[in-house]
Amino acid sequence: MKKHNFSAGPSILPQEVFKKASQAVLDFNNSGLSILEISHRSKDFVAVMDEARALALELLGLEGKGYQALFLQGGASLEFLRVPYNLMKEGGKAAYLETGTWATGAIKQAKQFGETIVVATSKEENFSYVPKKYEIPSDVSYFHCTSNNTIFGTQMKEFPKTDIPLVCDMSSDIFSRKIDYSQFSLIYAGAQKNMGPAGTTLVIIKDGILNKTGRSIPSILDYSQHISKESMLNTPPVFAVYTSLLTMQWLKNLGGVDAIEKINETKANLLYKEIDRNPLFKGVAKTEDRSLMNVTFTLNNPEYQEIFDKMWKEANISGINGHRSVGGYRASIYNAMPIESVEVLINVMKDLENKI
Amino acid sequence: MKKHNFSAGPSILPQEVFKKASQAVLDFNNSGLSILEISHRSKDFVAVMDEARALALELLGLEGKGYQALFLQGGASLEFLRVPYNLMKEGGKAAYLETGTWATGAIKQAKQFGETIVVATSKEENFSYVPKKYEIPSDVSYFHCTSNNTIFGTQMKEFPKTDIPLVCDMSSDIFSRKIDYSQFSLIYAGAQKNMGPAGTTLVIIKDGILNKTGRSIPSILDYSQHISKESMLNTPPVFAVYTSLLTMQWLKNLGGVDAIEKINETKANLLYKEIDRNPLFKGVAKTEDRSLMNVTFTLNNPEYQEIFDKMWKEANISGINGHRSVGGYRASIYNAMPIESVEVLINVMKDLENKI
Repeated sequence: MKKHNFSAGPSILPQEVFKKASQAVLDFNNSGLSILEISHRSKDFVAVMDEARALALELLGLEGKGYQALFLQGGASLEFLRVPYNLMKEGGKAAYLETGTWATGAIKQAKQFGETIVVATSKEENFSYVPKKYEIPSDVSYFHCTSNNTIFGTQMKEFPKTDIPLVCDMSSDIFSRKIDYSQFSLIYAGAQKNMGPAGTTLVIIKDGILNKTGRSIPSILDYSQHISKESMLNTPPVFAVYTSLLTMQWLKNLGGVDAIEKINETKANLLYKEIDRNPLFKGVAKTEDRSLMNVTFTLNNPEYQEIFDKMWKEANISGINGHRSVGGYRASIYNAMPIESVEVLINVMKDLENKI
Repeated sequence: MKKHNFSAGPSILPQEVFKKASQAVLDFNNSGLSILEISHRSKDFVAVMDEARALALELLGLEGKGYQALFLQGGASLEFLRVPYNLMKEGGKAAYLETGTWATGAIKQAKQFGETIVVATSKEENFSYVPKKYEIPSDVSYFHCTSNNTIFGTQMKEFPKTDIPLVCDMSSDIFSRKIDYSQFSLIYAGAQKNMGPAGTTLVIIKDGILNKTGRSIPSILDYSQHISKESMLNTPPVFAVYTSLLTMQWLKNLGGVDAIEKINETKANLLYKEIDRNPLFKGVAKTEDRSLMNVTFTLNNPEYQEIFDKMWKEANISGINGHRSVGGYRASIYNAMPIESVEVLINVMKDLENKI
């Protein structure tokens, strides 16, 4: 029996993606070869990489708008480093919004390159909300934010209107909602939430923003070099890119970001409604900043934890324990999460209420 | 019908590894979850990472000898950068042996950190041999070499006896032969030849060599931080690590490096014997430096290329075109390559001789 997987990441992908990826490990494209043993320079894999890069832009509405897509390695954590290396002017400054653990990590890396201004933080309230009133200095090289905070269950609903180049870590909500992606100069996202397995990072870069820092950049960290080699500066993570392509194809067939946004809203609304209705539970994140991807909540009375944990495990639910820095529960309901699984969780919450 | 895959990398892995990896994409360890959707913090995956790290050391005879194994991302190309960052003293020097394209790449990165002395190079003869007479200066932080040169088909048979810490890129021959691995202070290897799919890099680090440079290192590039987090500083490439573990388990069951070395020698000797015997062919690499992993050869008469290419394709052989910088042919016969496939290639070479 299949589990209801609410893991925060690596996390659920569509069942048809698992089936196709599994088959490709045995035989890719009827080539007689596994996807794991083909050359990344083979015609078939170059086609995979080209389609993946193009489809990422298409799904975000950035096709033909002067953007490049790359599939790199190292996780969002390596982009924390690549971003200031490539964008912060020598002797310059950058501005960051601190909305959670990963934003803090990005800030730490930027500080090695120059003055890093934290324009606002919600750290003093354990990142339970997204700061909204802040000024972005006019002399910074870029402004960096995190669109969705996986650990705390908050999400930015709006982004600042500014002439400063916007950089956004969208690791946990890319491809999940309709926004104007062309407001960003650079977007990056670790694959392992809405896009694919752990092992690749999508980076979207607006033309014309690179090579302005006066800084010497090691080639493997230089976005320009990756772009000039069409995301094959060195051997790419073939399987992770292929599986990401399968997931993007699934999303396109479903109707793209417009269609999935409606489904994501339905799932999140159902779950938040139950959290607000059920007297045993309360939400963690400030209501207006609630994430559509990661739903954080706690029991009002910790005494019920043991019985609740037993009940959801019996219902074949996995991965809803909260992050250690927040506690309680976190239900991650990414694109591939079926509404039926969300309903199973809601029914367990109702059953708990009826039981006690 | 299965192909005979002589690809230089990503390259052939054992058939049983493909089967087990394919099954794990559908259901990992009877968990009801795909290996692609489980948390890297789950008990089952932590066990995979721990076993992979321990087994890598065991297979190299380094168990209990004061070494740490890491499975990182970014390919050997990122290690070209991490090595000088972590080992070259601030204001110090490093020595490199230039035996091929990848060595040149490593040298280029090191130059960004300090004086990089190329102790010898075979560039002037298109890297067809491994330089042997050179001096390693006594004041360098480390000596870097490439044990096997995938593109040119040469391999180091001996390593310098020196008190200087030895660093070796073993991407294309790790786990393939018996050598005293404890002579090295640091070994790294991209997985995609003898270990697993593209997407992870094994790094082996001797205790006590880190934190001596006086240099500030960004955390994602700092080996110490990866060691302290047991190779989970950020989300690891779960599937690539798991598949690498499966390949290492296969090797252990076969009898380890001792056993595979004999098989590798048999395969290479058969093929080199035919190259030397068959009047239509000649080897590219200097005889004493011939690689047991990548066998480079050319037709004496290029007029036969068309018919030879047709013949090996009909025999279901793939991936033996030489690298563009060498031309001719390259048969990569890594650990997982069955002797039967080598025999098929030899038979095609003999058939060509009989035909013309």
